[in-house]
This record gives sequence, C-alpha cells and structure tokens, in this order.
Amino acid sequence: MGTKSIQLDTIQALISERQNDICDALSVSGDTAFKTDIWQRNGGGGGNTRVVAGAVLERAGVNTSYVHGEITPSEAPMFQQLLQKVAPTAKLKSNATFEATGLSLVIHPKNPFVPTVHANYRYFELDNNNEKIWWIGGGADLTPYYLFDEDATHFHTVHKQVCDRYKPNAYQPFKQQCDEYFYIPHRRETRGIGGIFFDYLNDDFDQLFEFISNASNAFIDAYIPILEKRKNTPYTDTHRQWQSIRRGRYAEFNLVYDRGTLFGLKTDGRIESILMSMPPMAEWRYDHTPEESSEEAKIQAVLKQPKDWV
Amino acid sequence: MGTKSIQLDTIQALISERQNDICDALSVSGDTAFKTDIWQRNGGGGGNTRVVAGAVLERAGVNTSYVHGEITPSEAPMFQQLLQKVAPTAKLKSNATFEATGLSLVIHPKNPFVPTVHANYRYFELDNNNEKIWWIGGGADLTPYYLFDEDATHFHTVHKQVCDRYKPNAYQPFKQQCDEYFYIPHRRETRGIGGIFFDYLNDDFDQLFEFISNASNAFIDAYIPILEKRKNTPYTDTHRQWQSIRRGRYAEFNLVYDRGTLFGLKTDGRIESILMSMPPMAEWRYDHTPEESSEEAKIQAVLKQPKDWV
Repeated sequence: MGTKSIQLDTIQALISERQNDICDALSVSGDTAFKTDIWQRNGGGGGNTRVVAGAVLERAGVNTSYVHGEITPSEAPMFQQLLQKVAPTAKLKSNATFEATGLSLVIHPKNPFVPTVHANYRYFELDNNNEKIWWIGGGADLTPYYLFDEDATHFHTVHKQVCDRYKPNAYQPFKQQCDEYFYIPHRRETRGIGGIFFDYLNDDFDQLFEFISNASNAFIDAYIPILEKRKNTPYTDTHRQWQSIRRGRYAEFNLVYDRGTLFGLKTDGRIESILMSMPPMAEWRYDHTPEESSEEAKIQAVLKQPKDWV
Repeated sequence: MGTKSIQLDTIQALISERQNDICDALSVSGDTAFKTDIWQRNGGGGGNTRVVAGAVLERAGVNTSYVHGEITPSEAPMFQQLLQKVAPTAKLKSNATFEATGLSLVIHPKNPFVPTVHANYRYFELDNNNEKIWWIGGGADLTPYYLFDEDATHFHTVHKQVCDRYKPNAYQPFKQQCDEYFYIPHRRETRGIGGIFFDYLNDDFDQLFEFISNASNAFIDAYIPILEKRKNTPYTDTHRQWQSIRRGRYAEFNLVYDRGTLFGLKTDGRIESILMSMPPMAEWRYDHTPEESSEEAKIQAVLKQPKDWV
C-alpha cells in the first residue's frame, strides 16, 4: 500500500475519538471494565476491539478497524459489485487494492426492557489501477424486545435532526433504507424498529465527514437516555425468554443477510471482532407465537409493518 | 406437474416409513409426545413435521417433505448449479420444473454428554423441457460436545458397514466429503466429528435406493445406543455452558453454509420446519478459549483436525 489518503486519515481520527466517547458514555451503565484487544489482520491492517460483559451490558462491543490489501480472485466478484454501486460502468482491474475503515458497535443489554442497539460508520477506498474511488456509509438501528413508543420516537427524532443538518430531505430515504436493509425475508419481519441507514455516498467529502461526525455523536444522545431510563425496570424469566427468542432472529439476520458480517467472513477478518455482534445467548423454539394482545404480540406486529416514528 | 415418477413414489414410501421407525426408536428417551404438523407449500407440495421438546430430547425434529414447482427466475441460478453437478454441459430451460423429497432430522439432546445428531436422505428430479434428470444425496453426522472415542467409532463403524454393502470403497470418500461439507471456514474447524455425506449420485437407482434404505435404517443403530448410554450422565452448569457455546457454532454453520437450509430459505419453504434444525439455545462469548488439557479443549482439537474413527 502507498500512503493513506488525507480523507482516510481524517476518518480514522474521527472514529478513534468516537470510540472513546461512546465507551465513556456507556459508563452510565456501571459496566466500565472494557477489555481492549489490538489485533492485526493477516492480509493487511487490523483493529481495536473493546468489549465489556457486565451486569447491565450483558455484552457490548465497540470496534474500530482499518483493513487494506490486494483483492484476491475469490474476493473480486464482491468488490466488483461494490464498485458498480458508485461507478456503474467501472470494471475492477486485476491489480486493484482496497482500504476500509470504520467504527462498529453492538450493545446487548441484559434487561429485556432495554433495546439492543447497533451502529456503524465506515469509509471505503478502492484503488482501481491508480483510479481512486471512495464512499461513505453507516447508520444506527434499534432493536427493542418490548416496545415503548416514546423510546422509538426519541431514537428516530435525534437521528432525524442530524439528517436535517446534513440535507433537508435526507431522513426519510435513510429511514426507509434502514427498514429495507434490516428486513428478514424468511421471517417476513424487520430486525428492529429501524433508525437510519445510508451507503455509497461520495458526492462531497467535507459535507459527508461532517454528517458522520454529527451522526456518530448523536448516537450517544439517541441511545444513552433510553439505557438509563430502562436499565432498572424489573423483569421476569418470561421477559428474558422472549428476549432470547428475539435474539435468535437477530442471529439469523446477522449470519444470513448482514453485508458487514459476510464482508468480514469473506475477507478473513478477525472472527471474534466480527461476531461480537452476535447476541450473548439466543433461543429457538418450534413454531412459537406470542399470545394475542400481549406485549410480545405488540412488538411483533410493528416488526411486520414498519411505522413512522417522527 | 404431471404424474410422479415411480422412483419418486418409491422414495416417498421409504422416507415415510423411516420417519415412523426413527420416531419410534427415539421413544427410548422417554420423550414420546411428538407433535405432528402437516403443512402445504405455497409454490407446490408440503410436508410432515414431527417435533418433540422434552426432558431428554431438548428438541428433536423428524421431517419429511415433498416440494415441487416451476423454477422462478430468481431460483434459476441455484438450479443451474445443481443441474451442472450431474450433467456438466446441460443448460437449464426456462420451462424447467423440479421435484424434491427427503427425510431430514436433527436431535438436540439436553444432556451435554449426548451428542447432537443430524441425518438427511433426499431425492431430486428436474424436468428440463421433458428431459428428466434425477439424483440422490444424503448422510448422517454426529456433533458431540464432549468426546467419547468409543461413541465416535461406533457411529462411524455402523455407517462404514452400510457403505461397504453399497460399494466396497464408498465409505472413505463419503467420510471425507462429510468432513469437508461440515467445515466452518471462519472458525477453521468442523461442526462435529463427521459421519458420511454423499450427493449427486445417479448411476443406478435400484442400487442407490437400497443404499439409502439401509443407511436410514442403520442410522437408528448408529445413534440410539449412544443416546441410551449417555442420557443419564450427571452434568453441571459448566457442561451446559460449553454445550451452548458449541451450539452457537452449530447455528453459524446452519445459517451461513448449510445448502439444505439455504435451499429452503430461497424456495420459500416452511420456515419452522427448516429452522427446526437450529439448537434450542446457543451462547456467544467474546474470545472464549477452553482451558488447556480440559475435556473442552480435547473435543476442540479434534474439530480442528478430523480423525479416522474406524
């Protein structure tokens, strides 16, 4: 690899700062003993994985990584697909190289009344025989086990505000892309109640940088108040069982559909950092249906038919 | 669809009989209250799913199905791949139809000293513009959480005997294909200690029918004695935790790599019957490594480096 581009350096500085900010913000949970693993990737690059498993955060991982390398023949079809998203007529050259950096986090709280949350902010650069192509993607989405409308509205409102600062009509398409991305076709339902999702943005780096800088900051305001408000809600084994069943769906989405997970598995990423997104535990029951009019049925109905929250 | 072929009828009668035999044989567990679900598939066909969740069999499912239909444009690439396995130069026609029937079972015992087991015997028929192409596949594999060499040897020996009756040198390649098929690349380990796996066999129907008839019968002799011998072994929470972690790997294999699961998801199969193969529960821990020289390390070492058991 040659020298990193200024854009890449700028993004790396941002995500490193946000990793600290977010781990600090999560300390309201009382679980502060994050374990840090600095790792190297065989093909090039590496990352910084911070994980905590505690009384409130059953498991939380906040990961940054910078990976780069030659594109192997087996990886080429995947990179060709990516390239076409930003340059529809471009052909991947045999000597193409890639660089990717991002912040990825998944928080699986123990209390079933606190939603699981995921966020990711990423920058991608392809050197296609000296032609540089870059793009930015990211998003944040909320996966409640029990639905509190006010939490869903709060999470979406904070994200709408940050989208409004970026572009006047950005929220609606980003919200819709989130519902579409986190859809589980074989279950005919979404993973959670959504948030925002965007990808392959490459029109104006400075504007996009400001957007993901603001979005990754807004994530803290969007999630931490919900964590604080719900973390001491009393719960029963029945609530935990429902959480486990829903976590099974979370596992299904990640392993069957999630592009980030499959990208990591295919590019020989560090498996423990990729699969830190998996739920700490999950259950599968045969043909389980929640009781009619129950709280479990209420959230399931919303997952079958996404709502507008703002 | 036209009339079913005699071959298809013959296989359907066999798997229906074996479904009864296997459910009967599982009654040694004491869990006999199998629930039967007869289901129809939207695109054509349906199945008979029998599931029990009890004190010894945490969950066991024994499923037969017969599915058929037109091949939709989105399914065509998958069927083209299948077709080429048995007829390398054949091109899938736009009016091609398919029929598939099989018996599929997964037994997840509660006691961590009883291995999980999976078996499948299947018949496939493609009508490619009036040219009929058929093949047979199947196999059985064992997934212990703790290793008893004698159990692994017994399971393999019974399957070797049935392979020997089929063809003198069939066991070794079928054993090897099993190790290859149930390999989890991202974990660099196999799902379990293997068994036999075969696919795309279509040289002599009568001989193949006798083989899968014997193999599906031998399955009972291969597994039930292990279930009986280990089901009352005392265990601790630590043993259950290790079982849960290994079940996470089982879930990873099924959702990321298993052809049968992905075929079911892509052809709009009955989701509860497809995912009855999932473990009843699973755990994911960050960067978990068994203690050196422990029983957990012993089985893990064998999964990293498959052994000959006969």
